[in-house]
Amino acid sequence: MKRLLITGAAGGIGTAMRSRLAHLAETLRLADIAPIPDPAPNEEVVQCDLADRDAVFDMVAGCDGIVHLGGVPVERSFNQILNANIIGLFNLFEAARAHDRPRILFASSNHAIGYYRQTERLTAASPTKPDSLYGVSKVFGEALASMYFHKFGQETASVRIGSCETRPTDRRMLATWLSHDDFAALAERVFAVPRLGCPIIYGASANDENWWDNGSVSYLGWRPRDSSAKWRAEIEATTPRPAPDDPVALFQGGIFTQEPIHED
Amino acid sequence: MKRLLITGAAGGIGTAMRSRLAHLAETLRLADIAPIPDPAPNEEVVQCDLADRDAVFDMVAGCDGIVHLGGVPVERSFNQILNANIIGLFNLFEAARAHDRPRILFASSNHAIGYYRQTERLTAASPTKPDSLYGVSKVFGEALASMYFHKFGQETASVRIGSCETRPTDRRMLATWLSHDDFAALAERVFAVPRLGCPIIYGASANDENWWDNGSVSYLGWRPRDSSAKWRAEIEATTPRPAPDDPVALFQGGIFTQEPIHED
Amino acid sequence: MKRLLITGAAGGIGTAMRSRLAHLAETLRLADIAPIPDPAPNEEVVQCDLADRDAVFDMVAGCDGIVHLGGVPVERSFNQILNANIIGLFNLFEAARAHDRPRILFASSNHAIGYYRQTERLTAASPTKPDSLYGVSKVFGEALASMYFHKFGQETASVRIGSCETRPTDRRMLATWLSHDDFAALAERVFAVPRLGCPIIYGASANDENWWDNGSVSYLGWRPRDSSAKWRAEIEATTPRPAPDDPVALFQGGIFTQEPIHED
Amino acid sequence: MKRLLITGAAGGIGTAMRSRLAHLAETLRLADIAPIPDPAPNEEVVQCDLADRDAVFDMVAGCDGIVHLGGVPVERSFNQILNANIIGLFNLFEAARAHDRPRILFASSNHAIGYYRQTERLTAASPTKPDSLYGVSKVFGEALASMYFHKFGQETASVRIGSCETRPTDRRMLATWLSHDDFAALAERVFAVPRLGCPIIYGASANDENWWDNGSVSYLGWRPRDSSAKWRAEIEATTPRPAPDDPVALFQGGIFTQEPIHED
Amino acid sequence: MKRLLITGAAGGIGTAMRSRLAHLAETLRLADIAPIPDPAPNEEVVQCDLADRDAVFDMVAGCDGIVHLGGVPVERSFNQILNANIIGLFNLFEAARAHDRPRILFASSNHAIGYYRQTERLTAASPTKPDSLYGVSKVFGEALASMYFHKFGQETASVRIGSCETRPTDRRMLATWLSHDDFAALAERVFAVPRLGCPIIYGASANDENWWDNGSVSYLGWRPRDSSAKWRAEIEATTPRPAPDDPVALFQGGIFTQEPIHED
Amino acid sequence: MKRLLITGAAGGIGTAMRSRLAHLAETLRLADIAPIPDPAPNEEVVQCDLADRDAVFDMVAGCDGIVHLGGVPVERSFNQILNANIIGLFNLFEAARAHDRPRILFASSNHAIGYYRQTERLTAASPTKPDSLYGVSKVFGEALASMYFHKFGQETASVRIGSCETRPTDRRMLATWLSHDDFAALAERVFAVPRLGCPIIYGASANDENWWDNGSVSYLGWRPRDSSAKWRAEIEATTPRPAPDDPVALFQGGIFTQEPIHED
Repeated sequence: MKRLLITGAAGGIGTAMRSRLAHLAETLRLADIAPIPDPAPNEEVVQCDLADRDAVFDMVAGCDGIVHLGGVPVERSFNQILNANIIGLFNLFEAARAHDRPRILFASSNHAIGYYRQTERLTAASPTKPDSLYGVSKVFGEALASMYFHKFGQETASVRIGSCETRPTDRRMLATWLSHDDFAALAERVFAVPRLGCPIIYGASANDENWWDNGSVSYLGWRPRDSSAKWRAEIEATTPRPAPDDPVALFQGGIFTQEPIHED
Repeated sequence: MKRLLITGAAGGIGTAMRSRLAHLAETLRLADIAPIPDPAPNEEVVQCDLADRDAVFDMVAGCDGIVHLGGVPVERSFNQILNANIIGLFNLFEAARAHDRPRILFASSNHAIGYYRQTERLTAASPTKPDSLYGVSKVFGEALASMYFHKFGQETASVRIGSCETRPTDRRMLATWLSHDDFAALAERVFAVPRLGCPIIYGASANDENWWDNGSVSYLGWRPRDSSAKWRAEIEATTPRPAPDDPVALFQGGIFTQEPIHED
Repeated sequence: MKRLLITGAAGGIGTAMRSRLAHLAETLRLADIAPIPDPAPNEEVVQCDLADRDAVFDMVAGCDGIVHLGGVPVERSFNQILNANIIGLFNLFEAARAHDRPRILFASSNHAIGYYRQTERLTAASPTKPDSLYGVSKVFGEALASMYFHKFGQETASVRIGSCETRPTDRRMLATWLSHDDFAALAERVFAVPRLGCPIIYGASANDENWWDNGSVSYLGWRPRDSSAKWRAEIEATTPRPAPDDPVALFQGGIFTQEPIHED
Repeated sequence: MKRLLITGAAGGIGTAMRSRLAHLAETLRLADIAPIPDPAPNEEVVQCDLADRDAVFDMVAGCDGIVHLGGVPVERSFNQILNANIIGLFNLFEAARAHDRPRILFASSNHAIGYYRQTERLTAASPTKPDSLYGVSKVFGEALASMYFHKFGQETASVRIGSCETRPTDRRMLATWLSHDDFAALAERVFAVPRLGCPIIYGASANDENWWDNGSVSYLGWRPRDSSAKWRAEIEATTPRPAPDDPVALFQGGIFTQEPIHED
Repeated sequence: MKRLLITGAAGGIGTAMRSRLAHLAETLRLADIAPIPDPAPNEEVVQCDLADRDAVFDMVAGCDGIVHLGGVPVERSFNQILNANIIGLFNLFEAARAHDRPRILFASSNHAIGYYRQTERLTAASPTKPDSLYGVSKVFGEALASMYFHKFGQETASVRIGSCETRPTDRRMLATWLSHDDFAALAERVFAVPRLGCPIIYGASANDENWWDNGSVSYLGWRPRDSSAKWRAEIEATTPRPAPDDPVALFQGGIFTQEPIHED
Repeated sequence: MKRLLITGAAGGIGTAMRSRLAHLAETLRLADIAPIPDPAPNEEVVQCDLADRDAVFDMVAGCDGIVHLGGVPVERSFNQILNANIIGLFNLFEAARAHDRPRILFASSNHAIGYYRQTERLTAASPTKPDSLYGVSKVFGEALASMYFHKFGQETASVRIGSCETRPTDRRMLATWLSHDDFAALAERVFAVPRLGCPIIYGASANDENWWDNGSVSYLGWRPRDSSAKWRAEIEATTPRPAPDDPVALFQGGIFTQEPIHED
């Protein structure tokens, strides 16, 4: 690619992707609502509020691929989620439609299915069960991606990210952890395969504990390499075992199921 | 019930429901963004813009059940759909949460799954495939209903209405037609059953042609009685047979799949 | 048939079957632990404790078919269930094996799957979820029938009876009611079909409300004719609507899910 | 339609269709390897060996629809089946491709799935289990139809006919019987629907006994009206009940499963 | 844990678990109907007949977890199985209920599904097909565990053990072998996970040959490490290949399917 | 085995199998329509046209196993496919029936399911979707194998070979590649297992990209060891990425979907 856009590039995952995805394009365009200091020579920086349609069109122009990490990443008030994750996402898809439909990796979330039990095993075809307004906005985003695919041929990978962190730090993350390297490897495949379609992909590493069956996207050739296993003993030794009916042990979405509706 | 709220009461379905659902409550509260003239003695009228949170709270206060037909019923610009079907729906669920969670019948739509082929048979568990921004807004609504059910115990029936009209008038409606009587009978069951849960229901009469399997809601005891069969001969005699690859013959959503993105 | 054995013949269902099944055999052998007065000319009476192996062998000798209604029909102490429903059932199958394997209709129960929600729809392949020791004994019985079929060719129909009563009398029975006539019609088919195999059959009439899909036994040619519909209005008018989280509204097994472990 | 071709028109089903399908087209073209005497004014007659490619092309020319009943209808030697059902079918599809792809109703057979047990319930997606060379030739035909659909857009309905006779005459036919009227009604729908696709359809009337779930073709709007029920008592009274392990009671294909490989 | 109870501790699996599970608790309580000589310092010994309710209550008192290997492990007379595996299991669950519901690992068996073909692949949701009275007793046990989970919150893992031996010694065990280390690793996970629920788990190592899909318990984080592969060449070289219709090659339960009903 | 027959032995796969399968039998009988020069001491050579029934009977006589690679391996005219793949296959199965039913490995093909999308994941139970006359002939062959299994007990493994080549050379082969070693290992298992049955097996190595789920034949104990991964970078660097709607990227059968009907 000539230019790969990463939105939400100032965040934790975005920062981790800057070096890991640099080889995919001549230029990385880094976008965020926050300023991004000190771009590298292969990087260009755009400050952009996703709710600003014109700004989003400018941001997308000239890009061959988009890793869309931008938006609100946790439970917030409806207005905040509306602006960033609903209006912002519509703006992004409209901009992509206007600019030759670059392939999109959309950071969806496990919170789109957070009310399933941890003892249940899901596929991409499992009906959604969002656990928060944030989760509802991710269902909206996946639906928007589906519509743009069928109507306009826009290819989008919706990745229901588990916990994309440096390492797992609690018992739930033994199942949900997605290493930065595995996420980057997934992004490579999303942009490499001849035909992407519009898949739902669960974003977790090759953990021994797992809730999600990615069989429907085996055509991508993504094989996660990391595992939470090397931190299991430490985590089980240093954190108390929750009761079986504690929401963090009961639901895939963990404590998001306990979040109230936030006021602005 | 003491008071049953019907939103969108000035529209075609709403008007048809006024007489058919009158026996369910002492008072029908009829709401619409348009004025509703000449209420009957058992009716009270509220004019309400769904995007106005305070007005929605007032509209919902004191109601024991809600038939939510309000909002934009066809493809429109994103802003129009955003206000009525996304912000408006959030307002409705927040108002219900604030007022003892009256049971809701939510008018979802076949356009939430409009990109399936007419040769496919769906269940409530089939992944959504919206055919328009309108259809995406219905997926949003169903997701919101699911979240309010699991988090707050709010019971909602999402009815994916086919074509709720006086009679079928084209070949696609031989499969999608929902008679006013059958819709009213469904509404009765939604408010009668001891436990509603949060089901997805396909809204079609007992037509010979059908695409949708309602097996998952057989616990409701809803048995549609009408059929498009008595108009089949007339429709097939008076309307040309579309080509097999005409979108009206190919997709469940029919011409909605051909709608462009509307500008304001 | 020359002789059809009905066990539990003194009970409610047994009594209702005496006239309804008389045409299936020259002689009805009526068995019960309680005495049965006044047999008709085509009837012979046997008093039998199912826990008494020799008595069971005598009871079964000479019969061409068995309708096994005997045993404890509700939650009781483990010892009572053990004697009648576990030891007694083993005795029955051993007696059948010793006497040319007459076909058996085994009265299993919805309480073998009583912990499913009323909003779930089951097939014969749904894993069991018994709601009581009584329900566990029915799972045992179905397993025993399966083993005798595969090992010895013993054909048995396990009928998970809903509520086999004269008429439905509460809201849950709108879904679970099995009329005496429909049960008798089922028994006819069990003894008429060339090959019975060893099916699981849900025993409910053609009620509008239903939780159970009998598709896997459509080869039997059983089509229930009765429906709870004609009592729905009366029942809904005269009985209060339970709360959605009341066990009688939540679980298929109803109040059996609330039964404690009984002491002797 | 202007001209509807019926092949195998001299056979039992073909004869029954002449009057029943006359209203579908201005002219019925009746074809058979045997002569057909006394055509009606709306009929034209063609004598044709399906193995003769040129003759088949002539037969198909000018037709708007094809009901293909021709070929060997029972177990025969491989050479006979090869000529009529394999070479003959290829000729038919090539002729259709050369002549504007008239829609085809292909008489497939239950013997394509004859080795399933009668206690099993099949859908159109059940893998084939042919019971004879005849059955294998029907699998070949369905595969050919599928390929011509995907490659050339040729629409074909493959109807796995049970027992299309005047009335059922044995116990197996209580499940497999397809009345002439119901078959004709199916043919009407095949030629009436805007989009046919390339479905597998089980051809049985609305019998109480049934082994086949036609849910996947509910979009056709075909609702069989007849039932074997009115002959059940007579058949069960006048024919002996086969043993449970008799092939006529065990397998859906009945005695075809016992046919040896025929020599020429 | 403070105290982990192992029943059947004098048997082969029990002996193998003594060292492998010692690290899970401060004290291992070893129980068996046979005496267990020479307990280690961290072990305490209880002699107990499972049919003796009071003895079972004493055995369970003070334990934080139970590995229930006790009972009859092969086909025996009904009375033997009744006492040890039916009455004995009820006693165990009652004792657990009386003593704060310690988590239970219940040694179920592949003989609960022994009549499936070796060419079939099962999940935890596959209906049971027991191959013996022993197998029926395991179905009873799993049903009892299910009921105690739903009614009382008792968490139990039912492990359908294949062949838990030092090494595989025949061709069937190439598929069914469960190494002692893998079983111990499973037991660790059963007691470690925050929420166990009431799962069915197939107990086999990571053999190349396998019949069972443990996808539904991937949340446990159990990954078997051993494989029968290193003995395959030896076994295939030194044991004759059974005929395809030999029960040891045909059924998952192997020769248990050939066991007669044992007399006392 | 004493004698293993390899048909099509002069072809690419056949040649690769000569050394790899030599250890399975004392003698390899190599057959082809083309001459095979220079047989090794353990090899015997037969020149045979599969359409010649007598020659096929001679070829099969005395063999304990058959690896049937013979026939037309690509799209050809109907007559060529008819002779080699339809008549020829019938001759082979008749010969096997006449000569004690040696186990057969039948080289079926991914072109039996070539019209599935590359984004779909198939199992052995997925309905066939052939992409060519060649593909149709493979469906015929699998159906014939099924019939001979159920009727005569003939065991056959139908292997839907992807791309059995020395190495993958294009992007589609990243998913479809089957190494010669993995194919040979599969053949070993087919002849080693006590019970083969009549399975459908997808023939692909352990590639990261994959479309096919072989779960239903996990009982065979076949674990492919090779992967296309080591050629991925080279292939992606040296071959252009096809457009998402290019048939080589869209369909599992690749360019076969674009093959016209060949004339002789």
